[in-house]
Amino acid sequence: MITPPKSSHIPRATIQRLATYVQVLENFVRDNVEVISSNPLAEACGVNGSQVRKDLAYLGEFGIRGVGYQVKSLIAAITSSLGVDREWRMALIGVGNLGKALLNHGEFRARGFNIVAIFDCDPFKIGEIVHGLEVHCTRDLKDIVSEQGIEIGIITTPPERAQRAAQHLMDAGITSILNYAPARIKVPERIHVEYVDFFHYLYSLAFNHQQPR
Amino acid sequence: MITPPKSSHIPRATIQRLATYVQVLENFVRDNVEVISSNPLAEACGVNGSQVRKDLAYLGEFGIRGVGYQVKSLIAAITSSLGVDREWRMALIGVGNLGKALLNHGEFRARGFNIVAIFDCDPFKIGEIVHGLEVHCTRDLKDIVSEQGIEIGIITTPPERAQRAAQHLMDAGITSILNYAPARIKVPERIHVEYVDFFHYLYSLAFNHQQPR
Repeated sequence: MITPPKSSHIPRATIQRLATYVQVLENFVRDNVEVISSNPLAEACGVNGSQVRKDLAYLGEFGIRGVGYQVKSLIAAITSSLGVDREWRMALIGVGNLGKALLNHGEFRARGFNIVAIFDCDPFKIGEIVHGLEVHCTRDLKDIVSEQGIEIGIITTPPERAQRAAQHLMDAGITSILNYAPARIKVPERIHVEYVDFFHYLYSLAFNHQQPR
Repeated sequence: MITPPKSSHIPRATIQRLATYVQVLENFVRDNVEVISSNPLAEACGVNGSQVRKDLAYLGEFGIRGVGYQVKSLIAAITSSLGVDREWRMALIGVGNLGKALLNHGEFRARGFNIVAIFDCDPFKIGEIVHGLEVHCTRDLKDIVSEQGIEIGIITTPPERAQRAAQHLMDAGITSILNYAPARIKVPERIHVEYVDFFHYLYSLAFNHQQPR
């Protein structure tokens, strides 16, 4: 039985683990697993069982003691508690290789995160059709964001153009930005930016690679 | 003056912030800033000054009180302390759109992280030349890893092929893996896997988007 979430505040680290649980639960669905208890779920996610139980407690009372969780209901409970079980319309600025890769990333669409409009400031790219979407001039961002009900902006420009892209998004009323450009951007406090920085991971790997094991 | 690092253990969160500092310092280099003190550096990175000073303390004594840090020397000190100021040779498995985007990601090469060999199990892709590299059959991974002195493996396969790709890498002696596939992989403790999970960020953005501000 699912009761409403206990709290509208869920810590960032918990949200990130919940995203991992969804990923792992989806693997279980692919393998036709219907019911799972917290320990094997924890093991597959690389955390411990009590952490899983603590995180899932944010979703309210859930699971049947001694039986476990219905995999599909658990996915539904997590995505509904986080409010991600609906369509999110996104605009992407910077139609280079990474931008194109994200456009083609089936997982985005499969989870309701749809890139519905794409932008570039390069006149040679404007008008081109990429994965069924026309590349628009960044100048037209504001109108298109409003027409299309876009809520999230993705930046995949080179680093030196990231700040300008963020400014275009903010001018269009966007307050949630996913930044793939390898540059920090300055925004007022009300704007939420998430950075996907590949070097966070590479530096960790490289540093640990050199440590004695 | 630079003294040797105080400790060979640097916490993961510190490594990730150091990676951010490098990114921001590189922006300062682009803007011809030569000297910076910890507070503006902290502000540009979205952390506080005492955090920056604490993180940089891992590099040993550094900076001149009241004057600040030489931007270029600070980049050199961070990358040298982390041991990332050299070439890292990497193999990539899964030559789809995301794999191709990473191959074309100039920032990787610019920081010494070179993808030197690429692999796929699709017979239609094997032999194809992508960004100057021939796509090899995953069967040949072990020989090529050893010939080419490859230390890091990157997985950009679909989720259902990630585990097999990890197995190929481990069989070839790779112990450091960067996984972009949206799937968790099972590895022994001595293997270090970093997950680049785009949904960690999207779920955070979407959840926060719905919170009152």
